[in-house]
Amino acid sequence: MGHELNIGLITIGAELLNGARTDTNAAWIGQSVIPVGGNVVWHMTVNDDKSSIESALDNLPQHIDIVLCTGGLGPTHDDITPTVLYQYFNAEPEFDEAYWQILTKKFAARGRVIPESNRNQAMKPNVGDVIPNPVGSARGLHFSNDDYELFAMPGVPAEMKSMMNNTVLPWIDEQSNHETFVTTWRTTGIMESVLFERLDPILNNHPHVDIAFLPKFTGVDLRISSDDQSSMTAFLAEAEPIVKKYHFGDEDTELEDAVGSILLETGKTIATAESCTGGLIGDRLTNVSGSSSYFKGGVVAYSNAVKMNALNVKKTTLDAHGAVSEETAIEMARGVRKYLDADMGVSTTGIAGPTGGTDEKPVGLVYVGISTADYEKVYRFTFTPHRKTNKLMSSQAALNITRLYLLNGA
Amino acid sequence: MGHELNIGLITIGAELLNGARTDTNAAWIGQSVIPVGGNVVWHMTVNDDKSSIESALDNLPQHIDIVLCTGGLGPTHDDITPTVLYQYFNAEPEFDEAYWQILTKKFAARGRVIPESNRNQAMKPNVGDVIPNPVGSARGLHFSNDDYELFAMPGVPAEMKSMMNNTVLPWIDEQSNHETFVTTWRTTGIMESVLFERLDPILNNHPHVDIAFLPKFTGVDLRISSDDQSSMTAFLAEAEPIVKKYHFGDEDTELEDAVGSILLETGKTIATAESCTGGLIGDRLTNVSGSSSYFKGGVVAYSNAVKMNALNVKKTTLDAHGAVSEETAIEMARGVRKYLDADMGVSTTGIAGPTGGTDEKPVGLVYVGISTADYEKVYRFTFTPHRKTNKLMSSQAALNITRLYLLNGA
Repeated sequence: MGHELNIGLITIGAELLNGARTDTNAAWIGQSVIPVGGNVVWHMTVNDDKSSIESALDNLPQHIDIVLCTGGLGPTHDDITPTVLYQYFNAEPEFDEAYWQILTKKFAARGRVIPESNRNQAMKPNVGDVIPNPVGSARGLHFSNDDYELFAMPGVPAEMKSMMNNTVLPWIDEQSNHETFVTTWRTTGIMESVLFERLDPILNNHPHVDIAFLPKFTGVDLRISSDDQSSMTAFLAEAEPIVKKYHFGDEDTELEDAVGSILLETGKTIATAESCTGGLIGDRLTNVSGSSSYFKGGVVAYSNAVKMNALNVKKTTLDAHGAVSEETAIEMARGVRKYLDADMGVSTTGIAGPTGGTDEKPVGLVYVGISTADYEKVYRFTFTPHRKTNKLMSSQAALNITRLYLLNGA
Repeated sequence: MGHELNIGLITIGAELLNGARTDTNAAWIGQSVIPVGGNVVWHMTVNDDKSSIESALDNLPQHIDIVLCTGGLGPTHDDITPTVLYQYFNAEPEFDEAYWQILTKKFAARGRVIPESNRNQAMKPNVGDVIPNPVGSARGLHFSNDDYELFAMPGVPAEMKSMMNNTVLPWIDEQSNHETFVTTWRTTGIMESVLFERLDPILNNHPHVDIAFLPKFTGVDLRISSDDQSSMTAFLAEAEPIVKKYHFGDEDTELEDAVGSILLETGKTIATAESCTGGLIGDRLTNVSGSSSYFKGGVVAYSNAVKMNALNVKKTTLDAHGAVSEETAIEMARGVRKYLDADMGVSTTGIAGPTGGTDEKPVGLVYVGISTADYEKVYRFTFTPHRKTNKLMSSQAALNITRLYLLNGA
C-alpha cells in the first residue's frame, strides 16, 4: 500500500489573520491530497513578513514530508514570500529569458507592451524549480532540503488549484506510491443518527473502510474512504440498497443537478409556485446549465392576490384554511402546472420566520405540494425558524419530493 | 491609546485539517477582536490529540498576550482538549454541584432525567475558571500562566460566538484599554481601482486611517479602521460624498436589506420578472423579514410561452429582437408590474452561460429592465459566463438599479 506522506500547510497573509478573508484554500487542499496519498497533519497561518514566515518553517513538526505554502506570491513587488524562501533555501534568483519571452508575447497578443516592472515574474531560482501557472502569470516555487519538499503557490484559489491539479498532486501521487479511495455520497431526507445506525453493521464487516458523517442543513454527506479498493467496492455495494432512497448524488452533485438529470431522461417539464421560498427553488433549478429544456418557469406568489390571480387559488380556500395550509399548497401546485403548461407543479407555502407564527401554525411550518395530471400530494414540515435556513431546507424538501416522485411515481 | 493585545489562535480538529469542514471561526475571531484592541498575529490548526495540542502551546511565539482555542470541547466524552488543558495548566477537575443542578433542571423542564454521562459537563478546574455557555451545555475554560491568558471554547460557531460576545471580548476590551474604530462600508457598481483612485487623496490627509479594499463579485467592501476617533469621523465625512452613490450599507447589510428599507420608507411595492436569474432576485428580496409588505411576488419566465402568456411580452417583440433584448426586458418589467399590480417592475433576461452565446449576443450578456407608471429604462451588462456568478451579478445589478431609482427617481 505504499507510504502515506505527512503534509504541513502554511497559509500566508494578514487578511487571513485579521479575518478580512475566510481561508477556503486550506479545506480544499486538505481534501485534495487524500486520494493521492497525502495527509495534512499541521497547518499554520502567519503574516506575510520575514520573521513570521521563517518562524513557521523553523517550527515545522517532525516527520513532515511536504510543505505546501499558499499566499504572498502574486504579481506585485511587495510580496515578501519569494525573497524569504530564496534565502531560506540558499537559492539565487536568475532571470528566465525564455519565460520573459512568453510573457512578452502574451502582452503583445493583447496589443500591449509588457511593463519592465513585470520582470520579477520571470525570475527563477538557481536551485529548486518553478511551478507552472496555467491560469496566471506568477509562477510557484519548489524547493527541497534534507527533511522535506516545499511547494509555494499563490493564494488566489483558481491559481492555487490549477498548480495543485497540474503539478503538485501528480507529484505527491508519484512519491507516495499510496492510494486512498475516496467517494462522497450525498444524502438528504434522513438524519445522521439514523444513517449511522443503518450503516454501522455493514461498516463493522469492512474494517478497512472509514466513513465521515458530515451533516448540513440540507442533508448528510458521507465521506467514504479506504486504502483497499476491493473492500471499498464491497462496502459500497452493500451500503447502496440501504441508503438508495436518500442518496441523490456523489461528490459535488447538487440536488438540483440530480432532479435535472431525471427530468431530462424522462422528458418531463416542471413549474414552481413559491411562497415562503420566494424564488429559491427556481434559482436552484436554473443553476443547472440546460435547465431551460425542462423548467418552464414559476410564479413567486408572495401575496394572496397573486395566489388567486396567477395560480387560481380559490378565495374560499384562503379564507377557510389560510395561505399556509395543505389546501392552499395543493391548489398552488395544480395552478402553476396548468398555468405554465407543465407536466408537474411544485409549491411551497410556509412561515419562514423569524416572526409570524401562531399556536396552531408555528414559525417554521412549511407545506410542499406536488401536482401532476394524475397525482397530487402535500407534505408538512416543521423546520427551523431561522429564515434563510428555513428557505433552504424547504427548497431542499421540494426538490427531493420531486426527485422521489420522478423515480418512484409516488 | 492603551495597549494592543497580541492574540494567538489555536483551532483544534481533524475535520479542519482533512478539509471535511472549512474553518469559518478563524475569520470571525480575527475580525471580532480588532474593535476591542486585540490582534490575531498567529494561528495554528492541529489534530485533537494530546501531543498536537501540547506542541501548539509549546510553540507559541513570543509576546502573545492571549491564546484563544476553539474545538475539541463538546458534550462527548472523547474530547481530549479539556484533559490536555487541565494537565498543561496544573489544574484538577472539581465537580460543580451548582452547575449540575442547573443542568438537571434544564432536562427536567423538558420532562427528561439527565443521564449520568453528562456529569463531565459539570466539572470545573480548581485553578482557572469556566466560561458560561448561553446557548449550549458545554462550558469553556479560562486558564492563565506567567505569559498569557488562555480561553478554550467549543468549535460550534453559535456557541463560540456567544462565549466571545458575552465573556471573552468584554474581557479583552477591559485588559487592552485600547480601542480601534472599525466600520465596513459596502459598495456596489464601482471597480476597486476606481474607488482607490478616488479615496487615496483623502486617505493621504488622514494618516491615522487605514482602508482594506475587499473585492467580491457583487461589489467592494471597504474596511475602514483607525485608532483615533476624530480622524475616523473626519475621514468618513470627507469620503461619504465621493462613494455615496455606491455605498449601500454598513457591516453585514445586504443590498436586499437596503432596498427593502427604502421600499418600506417610501411605501412602494415591487414585482419581479426573472428570466436568466431564475428566481434569485425574489429569493434575495424574501431573505428580508417583513418583505411581504413590499414584495408582491414575481414571475420566473424561463420559456417564451411564459413571457408571452404571463407577462404579455409581444410575440412580434420576441420574433424581431429575441428573448435576450432591450425590448423584451422592458416588456417583461412592464408586464409584471401591471400583472401583479405593483408600483415597480424589475426584469432580467440574459445568457447566463456557460453556453448559448452568439457573436452578436455573447455569453454573459444581461439586460435589466425597470418599469414604473412614469419611468422605464433598460441597462445592458456583460458579466462573466460562469453561470452562478453571472446570476449573482445580474441580481445585484437589478437590486442596485432599483435602489438608485428609489433614491434618485432615475
